[in-house]
Amino acid sequence: MKKTEPIVFKPVGIIHTPFKDDKKKIPRQGRFGEGNEGYAEIFPEYAEGLKDTEGFSHLYFIFHFHQSDGYSLLQYTPRNHNLRGVFAIRSPRRPNAIGQTIVKVNKVEGNKIYFSGADMIDGTPLLDIKPYVPEIDMYPDALNGWLKKEE
Amino acid sequence: MKKTEPIVFKPVGIIHTPFKDDKKKIPRQGRFGEGNEGYAEIFPEYAEGLKDTEGFSHLYFIFHFHQSDGYSLLQYTPRNHNLRGVFAIRSPRRPNAIGQTIVKVNKVEGNKIYFSGADMIDGTPLLDIKPYVPEIDMYPDALNGWLKKEE
Repeated sequence: MKKTEPIVFKPVGIIHTPFKDDKKKIPRQGRFGEGNEGYAEIFPEYAEGLKDTEGFSHLYFIFHFHQSDGYSLLQYTPRNHNLRGVFAIRSPRRPNAIGQTIVKVNKVEGNKIYFSGADMIDGTPLLDIKPYVPEIDMYPDALNGWLKKEE
Repeated sequence: MKKTEPIVFKPVGIIHTPFKDDKKKIPRQGRFGEGNEGYAEIFPEYAEGLKDTEGFSHLYFIFHFHQSDGYSLLQYTPRNHNLRGVFAIRSPRRPNAIGQTIVKVNKVEGNKIYFSGADMIDGTPLLDIKPYVPEIDMYPDALNGWLKKEE
C-alpha cells in the first residue's frame, strides 16, 4: 500500500538564534555549543498551548530546515569521508527537511521560550514542541552505529 | 516577522503495526508496551538512504498522526483531570499532527526496518528517520515537569 499524498503543515512560530547568515558558524549539535542562546516566538494564536512547558527543563523543537535545498540519499558527513545513508545522519539535506533539536529551557514568558542549545539558523520556522521526558527518552545502552567507530 | 507559508512534506514510507483499528489498544508509549513489533516499509526511491541505519540500536521515527482530527491548545491527558498545554504533552491532537517515537531496531532488510516499540496505528505515514545517539540525546538530569508531580 502506497500513500504519498502531500502533508501540509504550518509553522506555529519562529526560532530566533544568534546564527544570522553564516551557516558554517552554526554548531552541528546545539548541546556542545557556546553562546547559543535563542528564543522561540510562538504565534499568538498558539500561545495558550505553552502552558506547563516551563516545568520541563528540556523540550524537543521540531522545525523546518527552510534553507535546505534538495537532498541526497547518501552523503558525506563533516567528520569523515564515508558516504552515509541520509537516515543514519542528521544532515538538513533530507527527503523531508525536518529538523529536531533538544533545547534547554531557560524561561517561558508570554509567547516566548528562551532556551540554550540553538543549532538552527535565525528565522527557522518552528513546527512543533514536545516535552523531553527522561523516563521515555533515555536509552543508556543505545548503540550509536557508525559514529562509534570513527570517534 | 511572521512566516506562515504552508510547508509540504511527502511520506517516505509506511509504518506497519499490530494496531489495526482500535485506537484504545495502542500503547501510549511504545517503550512500555508488549507485542508491539512492527516494520517500516520505505518507498523504493528512498531505500538507499537506509544505509548504516542498522548500526544503530534505536532510531527516531517522525511520522504523521494521519487519523488525528483537529487539535486543542489545552487538553486533558489520560492520566488526570488537569488541562495541560498541548506543547507540554504528546497528544496526537496538535496544531501540526507530527508524531515522534524512539524505536528499537531489530533488523534492517532491503527497504524494511523491523522494530519494537510501536505506538502508532497501522498504516501511519513515515516522514523521517534519524539516528538516536545517546551522547546527544540523553539528559539524565532533565526535569519532567507536570508528570513528576502526578506519578
